[in-house]
Amino acid sequence: MTRSQTTAPRRVAILGVGLLGGSVALSIRRQHPDVQLIGLVRDRSKGDALVARGLIDDFADSVANVCRDCDVVVVATPVDRLADFVIQAAKHSPSDCLITDVGSTKVEIVATVAADSLARLKFVAAHPIAGSEKSGADFATATLFDGKPVVLTPDTATPADLLQRATDFWTSVGGQTVVMSASEHDVHLASTSHVPHLVSALVARMVQQPAGQLVGSGWRDITRVAAGDPEMWTAICAANRNAILSEMERFAEHFDALKTIVASDDDDALHQWLAQAKETKLEVENLEF
Amino acid sequence: MTRSQTTAPRRVAILGVGLLGGSVALSIRRQHPDVQLIGLVRDRSKGDALVARGLIDDFADSVANVCRDCDVVVVATPVDRLADFVIQAAKHSPSDCLITDVGSTKVEIVATVAADSLARLKFVAAHPIAGSEKSGADFATATLFDGKPVVLTPDTATPADLLQRATDFWTSVGGQTVVMSASEHDVHLASTSHVPHLVSALVARMVQQPAGQLVGSGWRDITRVAAGDPEMWTAICAANRNAILSEMERFAEHFDALKTIVASDDDDALHQWLAQAKETKLEVENLEF
Repeated sequence: MTRSQTTAPRRVAILGVGLLGGSVALSIRRQHPDVQLIGLVRDRSKGDALVARGLIDDFADSVANVCRDCDVVVVATPVDRLADFVIQAAKHSPSDCLITDVGSTKVEIVATVAADSLARLKFVAAHPIAGSEKSGADFATATLFDGKPVVLTPDTATPADLLQRATDFWTSVGGQTVVMSASEHDVHLASTSHVPHLVSALVARMVQQPAGQLVGSGWRDITRVAAGDPEMWTAICAANRNAILSEMERFAEHFDALKTIVASDDDDALHQWLAQAKETKLEVENLEF
Repeated sequence: MTRSQTTAPRRVAILGVGLLGGSVALSIRRQHPDVQLIGLVRDRSKGDALVARGLIDDFADSVANVCRDCDVVVVATPVDRLADFVIQAAKHSPSDCLITDVGSTKVEIVATVAADSLARLKFVAAHPIAGSEKSGADFATATLFDGKPVVLTPDTATPADLLQRATDFWTSVGGQTVVMSASEHDVHLASTSHVPHLVSALVARMVQQPAGQLVGSGWRDITRVAAGDPEMWTAICAANRNAILSEMERFAEHFDALKTIVASDDDDALHQWLAQAKETKLEVENLEF
């Protein structure tokens, strides 16, 4: 039996068939056409539409009915409801089930799940760094995760073979896994995602009329993510408040230092500052991991 | 004689054949295939390459030789050299020549040109709000200005018919002209472009390893313009320092207010703040002018 046969999932539950859950479904199907995909969907007409589109094969409106007989459960709800669903899924899934998630913050969920002895041994927390300012299964694609980092944040009790299965699973949907602690993850993401998101939203908020008619492609790109779902981002900020506040503090200090440079008439210093920003930008985009 | 025949430029000088100057050249040619385009190019092999690519028909290395017999001169150098070139172009061009520019700041250049009585009566300051983080004629396109705002900032002495010719010219390259004072322009652009640029560069600078391997598409878009030319942006900041400093002050205040909301645990307030950002983002992108 080859390794891919060993690790091919047979029946996968998707709790929350939105942009991310739907994209996980499409990516698994691309790799494993025979997999059975079961969605947790409360609304029957929405479920029928998802089946008609081929995202899922079947759906049910209770975690118990969805998770029964599954070998993998992917929890793709908003972050403030992830841990509850993981714990419920652990209760209603087979003993050898792998449960993973797509949440943008990890400390809170890992800690909550760790308090549940059953869930703790089935769960490998994951954050695929892929998404869009758009929400909903309509925007799901089979390629969303291709080449994207997927951070796995096991806790000290996570069985090694379960971590390996999670690695295989996320690799099979196209991602490139990287393992770190939940707190490292949350600190890093505050700086690469959460505070940049707030800054983007602030740039968007600050435009006043009639200046709004003069925005160019720079402003449009800087503020793209500001069109994201306020509910989702409120939950992310709530779940990673401390790391975000520290990073905001650091941002404010750096912004103040920049203001001093701009005010100083020292154009060499400003040039150097901008050149350093450009260099970091280009370096980061060429990083391999 | 139709109006388009009246306003069709016959011979146009491009001082600075980079991304913007090259795109102006390609856009004029698209609209007026018979126009003669003459570039100011110091380097012979670069000039030959531009002629071979069809961006310009001919080139010379002195303003006098380029501007002779032109009915339009477009100055597309970095902002810190624009005013000098406008004044030189005024000296060496026919008396009915229209001189316009592409500079991202307007107060300084309009004031400098206004001190030259000859240049003042030939010049209509312009800022086409179009560009890229990439520099150079290699990235020039005939469609760069299509549907983009082009701000015209005449001074009190600008003849009405010259303003009309500038309007016709920028409309013919694809832009949608809007007229305001130079100081209104600079204040607006500080908020829609210059400070957002600095914020984007700061987001880029602040990433530290190993977090850099975790950046996603949000970070990439927010920091796209941070890859822009540091020299060009230093010159823009120097030319619009006061408006930029005021806007940075306002940004810092708003950022601080946001930090207070995040720290407060008041998720309703944060949700409302994010929803307002999303609303402004979507409103601005649907604005007509």
